[in-house]
Amino acid sequence: MRNLKLILTYDGTRYKGWQRLSGEENTIQGKLEAALSRILGEPVEISGSGRTDAGAHALGQVASFHCESGMPCPALLEALRKYLPEDIGVLSCEEAAPRFHARLNATGKTYLYRVWNSPEPCVFDRRYVYRMEEPLDLPAMERAASMVLGTHDFLSFCSNKHFKKSSVRTIYSLTIRREGPEVRFTVAGDGFLYNMVRILVGTLLEVGTGRRDPEEIPRILAARNREAAGYTVPAAGLFLTEVTYQ
Amino acid sequence: MRNLKLILTYDGTRYKGWQRLSGEENTIQGKLEAALSRILGEPVEISGSGRTDAGAHALGQVASFHCESGMPCPALLEALRKYLPEDIGVLSCEEAAPRFHARLNATGKTYLYRVWNSPEPCVFDRRYVYRMEEPLDLPAMERAASMVLGTHDFLSFCSNKHFKKSSVRTIYSLTIRREGPEVRFTVAGDGFLYNMVRILVGTLLEVGTGRRDPEEIPRILAARNREAAGYTVPAAGLFLTEVTYQ
Repeated sequence: MRNLKLILTYDGTRYKGWQRLSGEENTIQGKLEAALSRILGEPVEISGSGRTDAGAHALGQVASFHCESGMPCPALLEALRKYLPEDIGVLSCEEAAPRFHARLNATGKTYLYRVWNSPEPCVFDRRYVYRMEEPLDLPAMERAASMVLGTHDFLSFCSNKHFKKSSVRTIYSLTIRREGPEVRFTVAGDGFLYNMVRILVGTLLEVGTGRRDPEEIPRILAARNREAAGYTVPAAGLFLTEVTYQ
Repeated sequence: MRNLKLILTYDGTRYKGWQRLSGEENTIQGKLEAALSRILGEPVEISGSGRTDAGAHALGQVASFHCESGMPCPALLEALRKYLPEDIGVLSCEEAAPRFHARLNATGKTYLYRVWNSPEPCVFDRRYVYRMEEPLDLPAMERAASMVLGTHDFLSFCSNKHFKKSSVRTIYSLTIRREGPEVRFTVAGDGFLYNMVRILVGTLLEVGTGRRDPEEIPRILAARNREAAGYTVPAAGLFLTEVTYQ
């Protein structure tokens, strides 16, 4: 039994997210499994490093799967590029260590969130940004961001009300940069709860527009209650950029 | 009567080109005239610097129109940005000299053509490039490009078989650059015939893949016959980037 690793990029606009749903073909996982099963002539189940939300994108999602086929990786890569729709791209396909698992072995993830913070038109990237014209106070957002760094219970930043497992996570870095008309949030951590990045960005944007004080962050974290944090920004601006291992 | 000048950017993917067609709303000109007429409360007819093809894009199309309304330019710009669809953007709106006309006064235009020349996936820009994986010989293409510079009769590079006016045009520059997975053609001239940029690029790509010798260019120009030149590359990779005046 071989174990293979894929690195993927996709435009999530027209998908119901990563995870295959019963009776629902329109997921990234579903498209990949259908293509792999057809190419390899055997049923294939893949594991992603994590689910991405409906409408969210990836620049470096990682997935792994087992197969019996002896098809060499370069041939499989070429076939996948041919069979997959144009909005799902395979960056690489290689043999993985026998016990490698894309989700269980992931030690860190990085996300990018793009805010189009300008009245200028955004024609060509309109599906990949969240538009917000209001001026943003970057130093205030940076002050707030500094307070989520490190290890905290992030239950207030989780949309899943029935989350039972540990909601403690570590954020390694959270940078906010203006790049022309955009404000880009880049956040790296050991893992993220359901909607955590989108709620973090929504909360920081409330700070950036003066609706919320940066000093509220410790109170929001302590509340362990979704109601304490800010709103969930749309999935369209969200990109999973990298997954790290060991 | 005021005379106003707009600079526009648009994603032409879902449009039947620039020019309003009778009984056909889905053109850039049609959308702009509908928005302007509604905002200004008077019928408005606009003149573009030239027609762009169905499916072609613009980063700096110029248009002019007359109106009676006294609405200040900043208010009109804001209203246009609100009423126009997301794939048509207004970069600027300003008063023009009374006799300014976007088409008649244009003295030069620059176009960009993007070729995705790599097996790597092109997920996010897939609507804005022409995919061609075959290796391209850039020096050969540059040699061929050097021979179209200057003033020539470009009738061989015109799709309109019944073209009656002068088909003499001047190309000021034609550069070909590799930028990562892309090969980008940038061509500037005093004006371009119907499909001229797309046939020029198609002919250069035939040189780049070895199907045609660079030294054929003078013979193609001399033929004054569309059959002598190469194929017409798809509109999706084409961008009108700039229009110059006086």
